[in-house]
Amino acid sequence: MTTRVLTGITTSGTPHLGNYAGAIRPSIQTSELPGVDAFYFMADYHALIKCDDPQRIARSRLEIAATWIAAGLDADKVTLYRQSDVPEIPELCWMLTCVTPKGLMNRAHAYKASVDQNVARQAEPDDGVNMGLFSYPILMAADILMFNARKVPVGRDQVQHLEMARDIAQRFNHLYGGGQDFFVLPEVQIDDEVATLPGLDGRKMSKSYDNTIPLFEGGAKATRAAVARIVTDSREPGQPKDAEGSHLYTLYRAFATPQESLQFRRELEQGMGWGDAKNQLCDRIELELAPMRERYAELMAKPQRIEEILQAGAAKARKISAPFMAQLRAAVGLRPAVVSAAQDKAGKTKAEKKARFVSFRDEEGQFRFRLLDAAGNELLLSSAFANPKAAGEVIKRLQNEELDGFVVQAGEAAVLRVGEVEVGRLEAAALPAVREAIASLSAAE
Amino acid sequence: MTTRVLTGITTSGTPHLGNYAGAIRPSIQTSELPGVDAFYFMADYHALIKCDDPQRIARSRLEIAATWIAAGLDADKVTLYRQSDVPEIPELCWMLTCVTPKGLMNRAHAYKASVDQNVARQAEPDDGVNMGLFSYPILMAADILMFNARKVPVGRDQVQHLEMARDIAQRFNHLYGGGQDFFVLPEVQIDDEVATLPGLDGRKMSKSYDNTIPLFEGGAKATRAAVARIVTDSREPGQPKDAEGSHLYTLYRAFATPQESLQFRRELEQGMGWGDAKNQLCDRIELELAPMRERYAELMAKPQRIEEILQAGAAKARKISAPFMAQLRAAVGLRPAVVSAAQDKAGKTKAEKKARFVSFRDEEGQFRFRLLDAAGNELLLSSAFANPKAAGEVIKRLQNEELDGFVVQAGEAAVLRVGEVEVGRLEAAALPAVREAIASLSAAE
Repeated sequence: MTTRVLTGITTSGTPHLGNYAGAIRPSIQTSELPGVDAFYFMADYHALIKCDDPQRIARSRLEIAATWIAAGLDADKVTLYRQSDVPEIPELCWMLTCVTPKGLMNRAHAYKASVDQNVARQAEPDDGVNMGLFSYPILMAADILMFNARKVPVGRDQVQHLEMARDIAQRFNHLYGGGQDFFVLPEVQIDDEVATLPGLDGRKMSKSYDNTIPLFEGGAKATRAAVARIVTDSREPGQPKDAEGSHLYTLYRAFATPQESLQFRRELEQGMGWGDAKNQLCDRIELELAPMRERYAELMAKPQRIEEILQAGAAKARKISAPFMAQLRAAVGLRPAVVSAAQDKAGKTKAEKKARFVSFRDEEGQFRFRLLDAAGNELLLSSAFANPKAAGEVIKRLQNEELDGFVVQAGEAAVLRVGEVEVGRLEAAALPAVREAIASLSAAE
Repeated sequence: MTTRVLTGITTSGTPHLGNYAGAIRPSIQTSELPGVDAFYFMADYHALIKCDDPQRIARSRLEIAATWIAAGLDADKVTLYRQSDVPEIPELCWMLTCVTPKGLMNRAHAYKASVDQNVARQAEPDDGVNMGLFSYPILMAADILMFNARKVPVGRDQVQHLEMARDIAQRFNHLYGGGQDFFVLPEVQIDDEVATLPGLDGRKMSKSYDNTIPLFEGGAKATRAAVARIVTDSREPGQPKDAEGSHLYTLYRAFATPQESLQFRRELEQGMGWGDAKNQLCDRIELELAPMRERYAELMAKPQRIEEILQAGAAKARKISAPFMAQLRAAVGLRPAVVSAAQDKAGKTKAEKKARFVSFRDEEGQFRFRLLDAAGNELLLSSAFANPKAAGEVIKRLQNEELDGFVVQAGEAAVLRVGEVEVGRLEAAALPAVREAIASLSAAE
């Protein structure tokens, strides 16, 4: 029983130490948990919204892939791919665009913030807003729903977008599902425990503050040079330092064991000079990063290898997205002519629906089916089966054998059984409707 | 020298007689003109905006394909395909989304009309508006620009959307072209001469008025039954009729030769009864439609054949769209890792551009090149060459031989010649800059 977890990384920059400790390291740890089916994708279509520098995007795609792999992401275990290598994603994006109310996008925080800024400076409300920014939550919904990801770890600023993805999924399910849910509703997963590293100036480490410590780019030398520039107070060597208030200590703790951190703290309080403290910090960071940095350099020297890994990841992702897209296309009416003609012949138009069995995969990954009446009301929800074949055989037997042979009365409830397997429970009063629905299906065969 | 002409047909209905006379017949005639490279596509992604009935869309895709082929469109000569069989289109749609200002979409007539209606009935301005309707001009731009269509025949209501496609194309060319224009700016082609047939009640024949005469569906019988219901005045047989004011006459003229029309008119003015006139009209329509209707029935009976034709059309379309999309992906930074690494190595970042020759195909389909300086300014525009090879050879000679050998002074102007061929003209004063640019390129080789 696995849970699919999906993480996107926008490819418009070079990962720094803050990205590593705050996102990359914890995310890789999650991917190693049992029961997690982790998907990581480079959000390069998203990057186009804000970045029109092709070189930067191309370079960032390389650097981010190399960083994650070097940091320990196992591309054989997880599914690692570039968004732009999965053509089903922009296609799904358009399908979802057609079911997304514009009013929903009007309410997106990121868009509203741009409008507020424009209004404040007395510009046109939509000044400088491109349609990519405005439609961004739809592409994000496509990223998630394409793979029916169950959990999506995001920062608080993304919670609303997740809710929009749920809204859009529900709308599509409602319009086209006919009782079957194509899309699992994704759940947001906020990790407030994630470390936010201070930057050189003490503010949150961020490219926009220009206060970052490099991760792999520039080698150990660059990391060391940046650490040397971390702002400290003016206490001399020998004077006791305020460890708790020191950014150096916060950074050290993000890389050290509790024992090591305690030791570092004591030394600071006993007067260790800032220079020595910076050296210790660098040494401790290096202990963790040095082997990764070597792998990173090897990968960056062989872009062909990165390309192969990403192509293999895309193939893995498309094994899911391509057949799923075929289902979705059929659902909205974009099926090959031959199938649709056969269906038209049978006269199954929207207005002439019949009772039917609808199979689906439940949130636990088990296979179930529902029996729906002609109006789409649920008559029966089946037990869970380990695979679709087992569920299919039960459906077949229900249609081809005498239903009464399966029914076990149990007071007010009736239990349906096929052999040893309990197929489902229902109110005894509902039995005639179930019998009628199944009979109509058997007759139609 | 051919002109590419592109026509889209939304797949949400069944073609009627008005569609045939107003759009299908003239459009097929255009496709047969010499020098026309005609593209026809079934706009089934567009259909999703307004139609959430999968059966209707599936059936419409079949009927429209069968109608156009039966009406004489030569699928071997033109490129006939379904929009949804070209995955590059939704991908280009997203790329264009990222360069389209939201303000442009705010101004679209179709969207503004919806807002006005909502405001008039005191509803939310965006009530019932989905993002598909709002983003529709971007998808339309992708349809056109994907194949660099030069002419797009549209109704007056679509002129603004064409202008938006030009705006979007220019923006992309500007942001990513670096002097090279990826997209031809499409030109609108309005045909006000196109026949608008009256419907049964005399208003314009339109599905929304429920006053249509069927084309092929239902056979000759259905057409005849509809014609019988055309509203006429109450004049009896024997009484002279007002032919000019009669819808029957208008319909007749749309199918008959001028001589036949004159004859029909005279008979009406001489007292032909409406019943006889309707019979004559049906006979005249049948003369044109009967053989087509037979082909239509054959095709509809063999959806597999329609599917094959459309798949062949998609393959033909993708021979253009797939390599072009590879170019566009590279332009925005979504190129394979290997190429980008090589380019990074060469250090050709945005900030370090050099002088360069840029080849392009001009609006007449001829091949030209520009010489640009490092800042992207045009130093020279070449003459037109019949093929890219001829242009390439001139560029090669300019770089490899002594430039002065090519220059012919002509007063204030300098003329560049290679052999008998005039390569271009420029101000004599610009010569040193041209010489410097070409020298820098020769050195770099």
